[in-house]
Amino acid sequence: MHTDLVAALDIGGTKIAGALVDGAGSLLVRAQRPTPAREGAEAVMGAVSDVLKELQASALWHRARAVGIGSAGPVDASAGTVSPVNVPGWRGFPLVDRVAAGTGGLPVTLVGDGVAMTAAEHWLGAARGYDNALCLVVSTGVGGGLVLGGKLHPGPSGNAGHIGHISVDLDGDPCPCGARGCVERIASGPNIARRALENGWRPGPDGDTTAAAVADAARAGDPVAVASFERAAQALAAGIAATATLADIDIAVIGGGVAGAGEVLFAPLRRSLRDYATLSFVQDLTVTSAVMGNDAGLVGAAAAASVATARPGASNGVRAVATP
Amino acid sequence: MHTDLVAALDIGGTKIAGALVDGAGSLLVRAQRPTPAREGAEAVMGAVSDVLKELQASALWHRARAVGIGSAGPVDASAGTVSPVNVPGWRGFPLVDRVAAGTGGLPVTLVGDGVAMTAAEHWLGAARGYDNALCLVVSTGVGGGLVLGGKLHPGPSGNAGHIGHISVDLDGDPCPCGARGCVERIASGPNIARRALENGWRPGPDGDTTAAAVADAARAGDPVAVASFERAAQALAAGIAATATLADIDIAVIGGGVAGAGEVLFAPLRRSLRDYATLSFVQDLTVTSAVMGNDAGLVGAAAAASVATARPGASNGVRAVATP
Repeated sequence: MHTDLVAALDIGGTKIAGALVDGAGSLLVRAQRPTPAREGAEAVMGAVSDVLKELQASALWHRARAVGIGSAGPVDASAGTVSPVNVPGWRGFPLVDRVAAGTGGLPVTLVGDGVAMTAAEHWLGAARGYDNALCLVVSTGVGGGLVLGGKLHPGPSGNAGHIGHISVDLDGDPCPCGARGCVERIASGPNIARRALENGWRPGPDGDTTAAAVADAARAGDPVAVASFERAAQALAAGIAATATLADIDIAVIGGGVAGAGEVLFAPLRRSLRDYATLSFVQDLTVTSAVMGNDAGLVGAAAAASVATARPGASNGVRAVATP
Repeated sequence: MHTDLVAALDIGGTKIAGALVDGAGSLLVRAQRPTPAREGAEAVMGAVSDVLKELQASALWHRARAVGIGSAGPVDASAGTVSPVNVPGWRGFPLVDRVAAGTGGLPVTLVGDGVAMTAAEHWLGAARGYDNALCLVVSTGVGGGLVLGGKLHPGPSGNAGHIGHISVDLDGDPCPCGARGCVERIASGPNIARRALENGWRPGPDGDTTAAAVADAARAGDPVAVASFERAAQALAAGIAATATLADIDIAVIGGGVAGAGEVLFAPLRRSLRDYATLSFVQDLTVTSAVMGNDAGLVGAAAAASVATARPGASNGVRAVATP
C-alpha cells in the first residue's frame, strides 16, 4: 500500500495543476497548464487532459490508484459536475466522468478547492491533530472547508465550509452571488483594495492597487489602508465566529494571498473575534496561519481521494466514481 | 432490547420535565417541576432530583438503561457541566455527575436543548429521512441543532447548531451575548414585539404585547406588525442560508412559539431565503414547520442518549458518563 499514488488535480481559474502524490503527501511528478478560462468547455477540458497525459507519461503512473480533484466552485460532488464561477464555459460540466474516462477507470473523487485546502492543512498542516477545524482561503475570493469529528466534511455537495458566501451584513452591499454583505464581498483582496481606494487611499508610483499594496500602506501607518484591513478582519471574524458557533470548531486556519499580509490582518482579526465569538464554547477558538502554501490544493485533493477510496462506506459525502 | 427505556430530562428556565421514554419515542411516565430559576444551585438541583425520584418511583424504572439530558445552554458536554443563561445559579454546574450519582450509575448523555429538539425531529419528526438538517427553535430565544451525514451532530461541546448567536448584522444592535446583530437579537419573540412597539404598534384592550399578539395584528394587516415579522424572517433567512452554505444541509425545520405564527413568519421567510441562499448547492433548501411539539425536548434527549450509549465509539461528541 505504501507505494500507491494518487493523481491529484487542482483546477482554478488561472491554472490547472496536477501531480502524482504519495502516501506522505510528497509531489513526485508535476504538470501544469494555464486555464483557458474564456474559452469553451472542451478547450478547458483539453488543458485538463494535457495535464493528465503528462502525468500518465511518467514511469510512476502505474502506481496511481485513484484520482482526486479539488476544483474552483461551486462543485456538485453527487452529480460529479463543476461550475466554477471564473470558468464560464463550464456549467454543470461532467468533470468526474470525463476524468474517469481519461484515466482508465480509476476512482475519481471531487471536492471544492476550499475543501481540498482543508484536507491538506488537516493532513499535514496547521490543522493537524484538530478534530474540529475551519480552514479558509482569503484571496481573490474567500473559500473554506470543515473538519468535523476528526474527518474532512465536504458535505453531500462537496462544498461545505463555503464561508465566503455567508452574509454577515444582511443589509450590506450586493454580492455577485446574489446575496448581500457576504464575507467575500467585504474581506476578499479585491474588496480590500476597492474599499481603500473609495476612501481615499492612493497607490504609490508603481500604480499597484492590489490588496498587497494596501497591506504595505497599512504597515506604513496609512489610516485608510489600516481601516480597510480592519473592516475585512471584522467580516472574517463574524464569519469565523458564526462557523464556530454553528459547527463547534476549535481552530480556524487562514491561508491565501490576503493572509500573507500577516499581522495587518491577523491583529484586528483576533480583536474582532473577541467581539463576535462570545459564547463559552467558542471563546477559546484558535486562529492561525495556513502552512501548506501553493501545493495545498494538490495535497488536499490527494487526501480527499485517499479518504474516499480507503473508506467508501464512510465517505463523508465525497463521491468516488469508477468507470465501467 | 425493545423493553429498554431511557430516562429523559428537559431542563429549561421555566420548568424541569422528565419522562421514561421507550424505543418508539413514547413517553410512558412523566414528571415535572417548576424551575426555581432565581434560587441557588442546590435549589435547582433539588427540583431535578424531585423529578428523577418521581420517575424512580415508577414500576417501569428498572427498565431504564440510560439518562439523556437536554438542557438550556450553553452546555459543556465534554466537562458534563451546564450554564443556562436563564438559570444564573448554575454556572459550570456538574449536572452529568450529579444526575449519574442520583440514578445509580446509569450512563448520562448531555446535549443542548436545541440539539435535543433536533434529535427528536430527526428521529420521528419533520427531519426524518434527511441526512443533513438544521432544526431551530424560535421562541424567547433562538436555538438549534444539526444533523450531518445522517447523524445528530452535537459537536464536542454539545452546542453545535446554535444559530441564535451567529451575527447576521455585524454593525447591528448589541446582543446580551456580547456580540452584535445576532439572529436571536432580531428574530426572537421578545425582539419581534419590541421592534413592533418601537415602531408604533399598540396592543389591543387586553394589553397583550407578546409576539403572538403582534402576529395577530400582522394577520389583520397592521403594516408595522407585518414589518416586524418580515425583519425577523430576514434575519432567520440569512442565518439559515449561512448554515446551509457552511454545513451543506437539505432542510431547515422550525419550531417554537414564534413558528406558531405560521405564514406570518413562513411566507416572508421563504421570500428572504431566495435572497440569501443563492449558491447552486443551497438553492433547493426545504423549509418546514417542526411537528414534535412540547415533547420534543424529552424525546430528543432520549434519542441523544440512545445514540451515545448504543455506539459509544461513534458518539459524535455526545458524552456518556458512568459513575463508578
